[in-house]
Amino acid sequence: MTLAEKAAQLGSVNADLLLDEDGELDREAAEELLADGMGHLTRIGGEGGLSPTEAARVTNELQEVLGETRLGVPAIPHEECLSGYMGPEATTFPQSIGMASTWSPDLLAEVTATIRSEMQAIGTVHALSPVLDVARDLRWGRTEETFGEDPYLVAAMACGYVSGLQGDGLADGISATLKHFVGHGATEGGKNRASVHLGERELRETHLFPYEAAIRTQGAESVMNAYHDIDGLPCASSERLLTDVLRGECGFDGTVVSDYYSVDFLREEHGVTDSDRESGVAALEAGIDVELPATDCYGEHLVTAVEAGELAESTLDTAVRRVLRTKFEKGVVDDPTVDAEAAADAFHTDAATDLTTRAARESMVLLKNDDRLPLDESTLGSVAVVGPKADDGAELMGDYAYAAHYPEKEVATTATTPLDAIEARAEGFEVTYETGCTTTGSSTDGFDAAAEAATAADVTLAFVGARSAVDLSEHDVDPSENPHLTTSGEGADVTDLGLPGVQQDLLERLHGTETPLVVVVVSGKPHAVTWADDHAAAVLQAWLPGEEGGTAIADVLFGDHNPGGHLPISVARSVGQLPVYYSRRPNSATKEHVYTDSTPLYPFGYGLSYTEFEYGDLTLDDDSLDPAGSVSATVEVTNTGDRAGSDVVQLYARAESPDQARPVQELVGFERVSLDAGDSVAVTFEVDATQLAYHDREMNLTVHEGPYELRIGHSAADVTTTASLAVTDSKVVPRTGRTYFAGTTVDSS
Amino acid sequence: MTLAEKAAQLGSVNADLLLDEDGELDREAAEELLADGMGHLTRIGGEGGLSPTEAARVTNELQEVLGETRLGVPAIPHEECLSGYMGPEATTFPQSIGMASTWSPDLLAEVTATIRSEMQAIGTVHALSPVLDVARDLRWGRTEETFGEDPYLVAAMACGYVSGLQGDGLADGISATLKHFVGHGATEGGKNRASVHLGERELRETHLFPYEAAIRTQGAESVMNAYHDIDGLPCASSERLLTDVLRGECGFDGTVVSDYYSVDFLREEHGVTDSDRESGVAALEAGIDVELPATDCYGEHLVTAVEAGELAESTLDTAVRRVLRTKFEKGVVDDPTVDAEAAADAFHTDAATDLTTRAARESMVLLKNDDRLPLDESTLGSVAVVGPKADDGAELMGDYAYAAHYPEKEVATTATTPLDAIEARAEGFEVTYETGCTTTGSSTDGFDAAAEAATAADVTLAFVGARSAVDLSEHDVDPSENPHLTTSGEGADVTDLGLPGVQQDLLERLHGTETPLVVVVVSGKPHAVTWADDHAAAVLQAWLPGEEGGTAIADVLFGDHNPGGHLPISVARSVGQLPVYYSRRPNSATKEHVYTDSTPLYPFGYGLSYTEFEYGDLTLDDDSLDPAGSVSATVEVTNTGDRAGSDVVQLYARAESPDQARPVQELVGFERVSLDAGDSVAVTFEVDATQLAYHDREMNLTVHEGPYELRIGHSAADVTTTASLAVTDSKVVPRTGRTYFAGTTVDSS
Repeated sequence: MTLAEKAAQLGSVNADLLLDEDGELDREAAEELLADGMGHLTRIGGEGGLSPTEAARVTNELQEVLGETRLGVPAIPHEECLSGYMGPEATTFPQSIGMASTWSPDLLAEVTATIRSEMQAIGTVHALSPVLDVARDLRWGRTEETFGEDPYLVAAMACGYVSGLQGDGLADGISATLKHFVGHGATEGGKNRASVHLGERELRETHLFPYEAAIRTQGAESVMNAYHDIDGLPCASSERLLTDVLRGECGFDGTVVSDYYSVDFLREEHGVTDSDRESGVAALEAGIDVELPATDCYGEHLVTAVEAGELAESTLDTAVRRVLRTKFEKGVVDDPTVDAEAAADAFHTDAATDLTTRAARESMVLLKNDDRLPLDESTLGSVAVVGPKADDGAELMGDYAYAAHYPEKEVATTATTPLDAIEARAEGFEVTYETGCTTTGSSTDGFDAAAEAATAADVTLAFVGARSAVDLSEHDVDPSENPHLTTSGEGADVTDLGLPGVQQDLLERLHGTETPLVVVVVSGKPHAVTWADDHAAAVLQAWLPGEEGGTAIADVLFGDHNPGGHLPISVARSVGQLPVYYSRRPNSATKEHVYTDSTPLYPFGYGLSYTEFEYGDLTLDDDSLDPAGSVSATVEVTNTGDRAGSDVVQLYARAESPDQARPVQELVGFERVSLDAGDSVAVTFEVDATQLAYHDREMNLTVHEGPYELRIGHSAADVTTTASLAVTDSKVVPRTGRTYFAGTTVDSS
Repeated sequence: MTLAEKAAQLGSVNADLLLDEDGELDREAAEELLADGMGHLTRIGGEGGLSPTEAARVTNELQEVLGETRLGVPAIPHEECLSGYMGPEATTFPQSIGMASTWSPDLLAEVTATIRSEMQAIGTVHALSPVLDVARDLRWGRTEETFGEDPYLVAAMACGYVSGLQGDGLADGISATLKHFVGHGATEGGKNRASVHLGERELRETHLFPYEAAIRTQGAESVMNAYHDIDGLPCASSERLLTDVLRGECGFDGTVVSDYYSVDFLREEHGVTDSDRESGVAALEAGIDVELPATDCYGEHLVTAVEAGELAESTLDTAVRRVLRTKFEKGVVDDPTVDAEAAADAFHTDAATDLTTRAARESMVLLKNDDRLPLDESTLGSVAVVGPKADDGAELMGDYAYAAHYPEKEVATTATTPLDAIEARAEGFEVTYETGCTTTGSSTDGFDAAAEAATAADVTLAFVGARSAVDLSEHDVDPSENPHLTTSGEGADVTDLGLPGVQQDLLERLHGTETPLVVVVVSGKPHAVTWADDHAAAVLQAWLPGEEGGTAIADVLFGDHNPGGHLPISVARSVGQLPVYYSRRPNSATKEHVYTDSTPLYPFGYGLSYTEFEYGDLTLDDDSLDPAGSVSATVEVTNTGDRAGSDVVQLYARAESPDQARPVQELVGFERVSLDAGDSVAVTFEVDATQLAYHDREMNLTVHEGPYELRIGHSAADVTTTASLAVTDSKVVPRTGRTYFAGTTVDSS
């Protein structure tokens, strides 16, 4: 291979350089751009806005162009797919934070297997998901893209995600990309790409844990670096993080791809290099194999750098070898094309629609219920549906869903909105609908009509929340009146956790009518709905539930589905209270601010049901534990209410006599169980001693001798039964000898 | 020495165990408690509430009791003295944050020399000040105790403080205690004692810098550990921090004392030990020489630990040797007693009163002025003085001032309140006074009277702010109505940066009268006075100015003193914006939250005057700099207004091509200059190359080759002139080869 051919394997090319205005392949441009080969193809279908058939056809053509180059090596077409393939006609599932609320990695694996089917139909080989960031600041707009605040839950969901997406192996599935490596959920001020402040232990125990789990248990095939710096060192140029830690400690052996433009940002944002060439060399030497989305700092810059003696060719070779190996392993080299005519058939199947409906239902978290829910259709005369989230399909989507990510395209969705779903079932009761206001606008012109509708109704269903999209604040629009402006999604970081715009005022106006008020919060991050918790009859957190979100919400409101989602993140009472994650160390967890309630508004793990669950006593098969062994912890769960439902049994561990300040408790196991009224099951967690390990002063992961407590809770704040356990000895855990998750078994009693 | 005698040297005893109800020495108790000797005596005068004469007399008696023990070694009596000796009858100076606003280390040295005189008169040898914490979260109640957000300014003020307190040497002065080691200004959620998240570079460059400077340039004699943990390791049991870093890197060779009860907290709060004995051993082995304020975990526990083989006697000996050496060096062993009859003479001298008045004047920061100030007495008919901070002496004091720290004692002060001072000069105009409301209460009963007074006046002077004291939130009082409840001071951490209670409503009511409104904020932390900035005619930040604060405020309002203080900390627009410190890295400093102005309300270094200052071009004596050399940077400053005033010339540096993400700029020099109208001076900063050094990836402090920019500004956000500088080579800086501060010279033009 020539230097240019090698360098080409580490680059990518943007769809817009390959397509003309009509979305047709510009073959001449392609032949020129791909003359030396190409590492990746950047979002041909998604960025190109192509139909599945066109996406497949154009991708095939590009692979053919590459087949005609000297080496004939095809490219890896990659796409985004956080809650579904981010392109036209894809099935859209609930946003990640909602999927995390299901506490069902298996359900997520079903979802990503479906995503895989749609993407493989258009020739996609590599996906830029999932997000493994552990969300520690609710101001951060990307909170919705995460699986929440807890490393264990994030890891479990991430493994489910990777498992479904990667399928049965290298040649079978789509490469998952774990991102953003590492610590992106803890940026300063909750601002995207801002500095991260943390120590080596927190880095490992909070932020690296999900990566290590997804790499070692699922063989995750790709990792993407993060934008930020840690203690002054940008992740994009950190050999320590991208090579020593990622490959050395976490055992990763796939390809590292750059977050979009993060190699450019070494100069443009961090100022640590003086030229694109320096940026390219720094990133490659650190361990970024492929530059995305475009070849700005790699390509010819790497060639020049090698020729100038500024970069060892062996460094280039290492990355090229990884990319080529992947292309062989994934089967791209053997057969890079797909059946374009069949592509559309894979999209939006009935099974996919059923699945996204089911996922949305399972993601709903009931936060408050004064017995108003479920609504009784037999006695209901009329319903007022109000609010900006009631009847807009794009408002149901998370960022990185196609309709949300490109608000300027005003993508028509096939979504079932809450209003659609409620009207569809409105036999025997009347439905009136008023928007009231937009999500972020300042106009209250719609309040009178909304209040009138509420006054006339038996119950008001208010759909409020946040619009998710990439940050549009830099666009030339009036933030107070443009309904597409956003307070959630990438770059849309906020200074207030209340409802955006005048939605809080709308709620208060509706409440003033004295018609019972049910508040449905449709948002990717939990808002500080303190007022609603005090005044509304019920509060449902619906997250960004995807295209069948309306169906799922109506199913919950009317009792066809008993909500069983639980919070994957603690909800703060106000922005000034942050952070509120449950696993703080005792000196943080027990300290209070003055003039405020220092508990979270709703704790991690919390979620109501239309039935009730009770736990028996937690019992252990042994109250002592060898550091190389495991212990069985069993608890009986009973549905003591009068309808079927599902519960999330949560197992926490607490070190009772550690030699360093440890979190007051940490999640080490969970199981979502479904039970008919009156039924019981015994849930047994097999907890491995290595799950209790933590890093000593020399950063050796060590099981520490001493007393521990295992605890079962309805949430992190509602532990009902505990058991004591003594670890009999200390033992350093080899990096390959770690068990990440408790095994669980569920036995009918 | 017996083991018990050794251990006794590492302990302390609380005043309340030695004094009876009348404040008389309980000689029998003393003889028993001091039988083996004693390391320190804890706040005999301050905690005991004794008059200077009594404090001296009782201290003498205790030293006599110790003189009669087998070894006859006296104790080290220590006291608090953050803004003055914290005991009866002491002169109270402005709180630290106000002193930092003077940008005058020399003035602070005068202040602490006066504090020294008062304390030495009662036999104090050791003081538990100054606070070197770099304040990074405005929610933190102890922000007022700090010198602000910037390591350089903190270091400079700390050196001034130590210089005045320690005087001409070991035998001459009072030992200063640098606290809280280390990073206490960056706790999670702004909560006192909560966890700290930071990396090794930030630890050194932000938080350790002031310690290193005060140790190496001033020979600071003592250091106190912090309460919190960093990355899970409590500072109180961290040998790495207290020995390796403090003694090894920073060159400290004095005694380390524990923050009060922090050794107990190893078990009680952090849970890292199982008994007081374990706590004592862990703290001593880490490097805490003396346990304060009482002998809970040292003393007999250390004896037992040595006897049980759990503690090496040599470890005990090392600490004992340090304490005994100090007692010899300080002259305590030679002559532990003072002239009790003369003690009172040292207190509250006319010179001290003049000095605290001068310090308060210099600390005032004018934030906004629509030319309403200074008030023109020749045309003024009437003034309405309103607000809870207008006429209460204790409201002028910072936490750790006697009257503020013990609100339950309701200490009568000799303070001149703003109302006192305004009334004293009210010849030719009328003064009406209404409280309006309390600082934290919810009652608006006083609003009508206040508005009436404002309506009838030519100008309204509203004195609002926060009451400082230790946290009383745990006390059994109604927080909404108790005026002593606090939102600033130790443990009084908040979730909102607005004015406490109903003070904001009071301001809006006063503004509604259309009488011009001058807002004087009397508070230890800057509030988010966004409304006042928009609506008031003028805003003056008076901090907690001490006993002559009223005089100083009146002098500024009426133009007897031209304000020249500058902010030592950035003022946020809202709590959700935090952090707002100016020296963030570019990826943090340039990112914005949506729907808000991302600049601070007032930037670091900002402050108005009744005159104006202009800067000429910054010139360098050489545009290249050897890494072992220095550069002279000169700027001409001209008072272009029509009255005398003082300005703070600020010199910032910026690395233009660093190999890691560096702060957008960092303070490296400043000089406060006083100029008559029309006058100019040339200010020259001698900047040493080591001032530009930063830590490489292996944590070597290194001067890095490359381009830099030196910048002169009126504030961090208002740089008016810059000069480019090229460092010609890279060089690792030996720990003893560092220059901490720029030399400055001021030449009349």
